[in-house]
Amino acid sequence: MSLVIDGLQYANWSEKIFRQLRAGNVDAVHVTITYHETFRETVLNISQWNRWFELYPDLIFQGFTASDVELAQQTGRTAIFFGSQNPSCMEDDIGLIEVLHRLGMRFMQLTYNNQSLLATGCYESQDTGLTRMGREVVAEMNRVGMVVDMSHSSERSTLEAIEHSSRPIAITHANPSDWHPARRNKSDTVLKALAETNGMLGFSVYPHHLKDGGQCSLQSFCDMVARAADLYGPQSLGIGTDLCQDQPDSVVEWMRSGRWTKNIDFGEGSASAPGFPDMPEWFGDNRDFNNIAIGLKNAGLSQTNVDGIMGGNWLQFFASSFEQNQTQLSKAAE
Amino acid sequence: MSLVIDGLQYANWSEKIFRQLRAGNVDAVHVTITYHETFRETVLNISQWNRWFELYPDLIFQGFTASDVELAQQTGRTAIFFGSQNPSCMEDDIGLIEVLHRLGMRFMQLTYNNQSLLATGCYESQDTGLTRMGREVVAEMNRVGMVVDMSHSSERSTLEAIEHSSRPIAITHANPSDWHPARRNKSDTVLKALAETNGMLGFSVYPHHLKDGGQCSLQSFCDMVARAADLYGPQSLGIGTDLCQDQPDSVVEWMRSGRWTKNIDFGEGSASAPGFPDMPEWFGDNRDFNNIAIGLKNAGLSQTNVDGIMGGNWLQFFASSFEQNQTQLSKAAE
Repeated sequence: MSLVIDGLQYANWSEKIFRQLRAGNVDAVHVTITYHETFRETVLNISQWNRWFELYPDLIFQGFTASDVELAQQTGRTAIFFGSQNPSCMEDDIGLIEVLHRLGMRFMQLTYNNQSLLATGCYESQDTGLTRMGREVVAEMNRVGMVVDMSHSSERSTLEAIEHSSRPIAITHANPSDWHPARRNKSDTVLKALAETNGMLGFSVYPHHLKDGGQCSLQSFCDMVARAADLYGPQSLGIGTDLCQDQPDSVVEWMRSGRWTKNIDFGEGSASAPGFPDMPEWFGDNRDFNNIAIGLKNAGLSQTNVDGIMGGNWLQFFASSFEQNQTQLSKAAE
Repeated sequence: MSLVIDGLQYANWSEKIFRQLRAGNVDAVHVTITYHETFRETVLNISQWNRWFELYPDLIFQGFTASDVELAQQTGRTAIFFGSQNPSCMEDDIGLIEVLHRLGMRFMQLTYNNQSLLATGCYESQDTGLTRMGREVVAEMNRVGMVVDMSHSSERSTLEAIEHSSRPIAITHANPSDWHPARRNKSDTVLKALAETNGMLGFSVYPHHLKDGGQCSLQSFCDMVARAADLYGPQSLGIGTDLCQDQPDSVVEWMRSGRWTKNIDFGEGSASAPGFPDMPEWFGDNRDFNNIAIGLKNAGLSQTNVDGIMGGNWLQFFASSFEQNQTQLSKAAE
């Protein structure tokens, strides 16, 4: 039986959405639980998730390992994997990487648009690549089993992360920029380097990442995926919808402006369109994954490749990414 | 093969002490990792432990479940289980109980000498029992699998914790007060109620809890244990040395005075003897557990009961205490 795994969502979670996950047969989702929140604030968000896990055990549970995706499929539930879109949650303390991993954090972006302590975001004018601390943190993420996510990072930083990381990295939610040249989409150079190192790209359906925005046709989207499969190989491709369902516009303001400016940063939006954009009609919520699967088939992809892109490839990636590298037992001294 | 489990230590940990744990064949220890520290400060202490686990994987590893004790025995290492001697680490946030449990916290005292948000400590003049929040927190600790430890609590609070808790509780480090009437030792009423509910008492070798202090003889200590086995049954008895090896006296000041007073509270000490007391000659460090085992045998306890008290009883208690109660899967609505 084929799998559905979404490489990124940041919904305004509710029982309604959890039931839509089930209606769409979504086996696993990487959910953003924090942007600019401190460690302590991130823990508050984890507590909120714990409460949801306690309240809706027949719909969702927390995923820690790839085998939890199979457990989800077997028990008709959705496994929820945590991620952060900015390193604020680790503050300036490398020791928090292992602590966050223990709490279930499985993805962390090194940057969200801006320069961070670790790397350069895709909205900065100068891209200095990985910082000294960035190299240390990537090594620690590699050790404990937390995926380096460069979705919101700039070109050089992304290439350096790919090179420096001893494990494959991910771009969980973005599209090729030669299809739609948005600042958040990725160059052919990056996507080649990503695929060559067994990294994963999750295709986004967030309108700012789509050609023609919310008017983008399913065929245009799926033809783009089919072309990427030709260029980079199908096995390192997945879906990362970036679905922000039911979020009020105040949330996109927090995502973009955090506490780093007293003004409003419009990010991918503009003063005349500051809020969340309207989704394409073929993907409104978690019940619509099958539309994408059908579209990919119609775009000429084999059933094997469609299954891989809809979830199988993420599962393989989860299996090689989330386990802590076994510390070697040293010879005990006498 | 019999087990050695220590129900409480707060050493100034070092490779030297980790090697002494191995030399003493100690399979598991409940270690205090925090007293008056906030949540964030407690996480710093956890990071320090993570570093030790990374540095000394052939000597120690973090224990989460009872089966980790068996793994420790099989691999010739010591499993380290975390605990807190005060609820400061959960601040005023019941959501932190599950988060701390996920990080490995397996014991939490509801009080350390003073009144807390949860209950009354053994140095207060008024004992009002479990507070409203205390009852909620005990229920949450029961749910997630964190042991209620009342070693530093007062009589009524301890009796109410025993009654209110749906799982057996522990007094990890104390002795019967009818042997040595110290404020930290426990009444016959408490010890009876504890044993009747399958709770555990860990016998302390901290000099302030011993008749004749550091001059207490091994025979006097072991006769006291044998008498407790007669009175309360041997199966709910274990060891909880309260070993504070290599700690500077500044640490006992932090334990007693935290940030709750600008003065010095001498606790079990006094102005003329403010520091850590000298240990009895028969228990100086982790290599000396066998002295106790021999002493218990000489005091007339059967080998079965000696094995139980030295570790087997704690193992049974760990097995029934640390796992999260399975949330019932409700019938999914249509």
